[in-house]
Amino acid sequence: MRVEIINTGTELLLGQVTNTHLGFLAQSLFGLGLRVERQVTVPDGVAIAEALKDAMGRADLIVVTGGLGPTSDDITREAAAEAFGKKLIFHQEILDGIAAKFAERKFAMNDLQKAQAMVPEGGVVLENKFGTAPGLIVENDKTVAVLLPGPPGELRPMWENEALPWLKRKFADRLPPMHEVQLRILGMGETRVQILVEDEVKALGAVEVGYCARPGEVDLRLIGSDKNLVEKAAEIARAKLGDVIYTEGNETMEQTVVRLARVTKKTIATAESCTGGLVASRITNVPHSSEVFRYGWVTYANEAKITELGVPPGLLEKHGAVSAEVARAMAEGALRGSGADIAVAVTGIAGPTGGSPEKPVGLVYFAIATRGTGTTAWEKNLSPVRETFKYMASQIALDLVRRALV
Amino acid sequence: MRVEIINTGTELLLGQVTNTHLGFLAQSLFGLGLRVERQVTVPDGVAIAEALKDAMGRADLIVVTGGLGPTSDDITREAAAEAFGKKLIFHQEILDGIAAKFAERKFAMNDLQKAQAMVPEGGVVLENKFGTAPGLIVENDKTVAVLLPGPPGELRPMWENEALPWLKRKFADRLPPMHEVQLRILGMGETRVQILVEDEVKALGAVEVGYCARPGEVDLRLIGSDKNLVEKAAEIARAKLGDVIYTEGNETMEQTVVRLARVTKKTIATAESCTGGLVASRITNVPHSSEVFRYGWVTYANEAKITELGVPPGLLEKHGAVSAEVARAMAEGALRGSGADIAVAVTGIAGPTGGSPEKPVGLVYFAIATRGTGTTAWEKNLSPVRETFKYMASQIALDLVRRALV
Repeated sequence: MRVEIINTGTELLLGQVTNTHLGFLAQSLFGLGLRVERQVTVPDGVAIAEALKDAMGRADLIVVTGGLGPTSDDITREAAAEAFGKKLIFHQEILDGIAAKFAERKFAMNDLQKAQAMVPEGGVVLENKFGTAPGLIVENDKTVAVLLPGPPGELRPMWENEALPWLKRKFADRLPPMHEVQLRILGMGETRVQILVEDEVKALGAVEVGYCARPGEVDLRLIGSDKNLVEKAAEIARAKLGDVIYTEGNETMEQTVVRLARVTKKTIATAESCTGGLVASRITNVPHSSEVFRYGWVTYANEAKITELGVPPGLLEKHGAVSAEVARAMAEGALRGSGADIAVAVTGIAGPTGGSPEKPVGLVYFAIATRGTGTTAWEKNLSPVRETFKYMASQIALDLVRRALV
Repeated sequence: MRVEIINTGTELLLGQVTNTHLGFLAQSLFGLGLRVERQVTVPDGVAIAEALKDAMGRADLIVVTGGLGPTSDDITREAAAEAFGKKLIFHQEILDGIAAKFAERKFAMNDLQKAQAMVPEGGVVLENKFGTAPGLIVENDKTVAVLLPGPPGELRPMWENEALPWLKRKFADRLPPMHEVQLRILGMGETRVQILVEDEVKALGAVEVGYCARPGEVDLRLIGSDKNLVEKAAEIARAKLGDVIYTEGNETMEQTVVRLARVTKKTIATAESCTGGLVASRITNVPHSSEVFRYGWVTYANEAKITELGVPPGLLEKHGAVSAEVARAMAEGALRGSGADIAVAVTGIAGPTGGSPEKPVGLVYFAIATRGTGTTAWEKNLSPVRETFKYMASQIALDLVRRALV
């Protein structure tokens, strides 16, 4: 089964609104074993009918978002009627339903609303519990088109509660099985991952291998219709890659860290210089992080490292703020000051200035101090681009905490 | 001139990554007077060449993102060569450049990297300062295609510094004049901005008014081909909106704050509970922030507020951690501990748990303590969605610092 998505809306093409529908719908469709093969964004207007006709030549299922409102630029209904060669029929009961919603909210209704009561002949009406524009399903022998309203707060519940159950019934005998394992990797480049894994996985047969590289990490995706084969491929990848796999699935690094800390009942403290609070901020993005995170310091100035974390001034003079020695002292100071089980420290040169031939922009030291097992420090050279540097440094700091937790 | 965008990447169609390229490119192209007429997302693979050929039938300019990496699923180079009917030529100097980058970071290079040194015959090579994959421009008599790498940290500077100047030269005589003033607004909703500004601006004549609302802020864009008219419109907006305009142009809130602090030679300290380090992290995203930011605390636990910021335990017992009184004490403690000129404190309930009927999720208190002029506190109710809450709270905290600086 081939699936395509058509997003309508001039605001998407002007860059004023980010398209979050694609991600939502794609993830949901993947759960049915369906993959979106193509997505197109077209402006409000005649391009909608053209895009529909174009997609109808290829697709079994088309999901169209937006353009179901009452104003003159909302023409998805008309476009679908045209593309499928159906007449638009007025449905009084839909208008009555809209009128009831207006009455409830004490808004005055106007004639424009009548447009929302038009349905392509033989179409299925999807109830909109959170707005006035109903969704629609239009079909012919080859293709089903699902038309959804643009606001995410209307689209999402309509999709989940109305469209999805209908599609499951409609395509019950055509939905293929689809299995996926995603491994998230830190500390190994994408080409190295490919060299280690791909040949052996491809030799298994029908398993698709995908890579997605972001600053400081790589996702390896193994996808296929045979669950055993996908699991065999994952076993190969796990064996080859070992502990650079920090998690499986869609969990982020900070979610992994908070989950592990909650499971092991350990608390974490942060002592940050060059990351400037980003490590703490990422940890506290995770719900319930307050169970495992209680203290963080952003000691951007040398003086702050001395007064807040007890770093000896002599250490700063002798080795400089960006050194393994100072990273260790920061981590130990944070451990002492917080009473936490694990403290992580980061000190480096984020740039654009402050580098030297011996200590270039991008140089960073990490330290982990743990109650009982002492302190360890690491040196890395990261991107010299400030925000990428900060993100990668925070990623490594979190990974070091993860490794201390397992 | 017709512009289309092709985004490549299976991860986009699986819903694992949100397409932020479209918004970035569309806004930038709009600055040249160009509108994106169509955007399509295709999976890695043969669909890229098909999408290119399809777009070449319509478009004068095509921007393609992604698929320039070294692994087997990166085939945008091949697709462009095929669609334009050009041979791929190996460029030793590109491979040498990649090798130098690997050597600098002390990574081992492998044979796969060679793919990134292939260029469609006659193509323009765009330097990638932040990664290994160069960008490419391929053209024929009718159409120009710009191929950009997928990682935003590589795509954005390459677009701004390499592709855009090239396009401006190439299309110098075809680009309409276009003037834009962008006002960035915090503390007023988009419909209120529209009610205050739009009628009077529209009465001027040919000035287009655009709004872009993000959590916690609104951009107002005034665009037209007549520079004087656009400036008149901006004068109207400035007079109507006053100090909710925090900056003009593309400066972020944190850049505004650091710029103002550097100009006024003031230092800033942060005392964060619910924002968990995000305020400090945003300040330290800005180059040269170390001149104005030296100390930050993330006092997530009550105990941390007591030991690190000297908040009296009795105050926490009487008013609770989420209170104006505790916010004030945190700000004053940070001012004392840091010796800074301005300290900002944030304490609130980020959720999903921890709310009560009296203090619901989303409630947050801010305080600003300044050397000399005392301490002030504010109460706000923000989004109950955790990451949106954190971002909006950090935005308001930074805006309060901005107001203290001017």
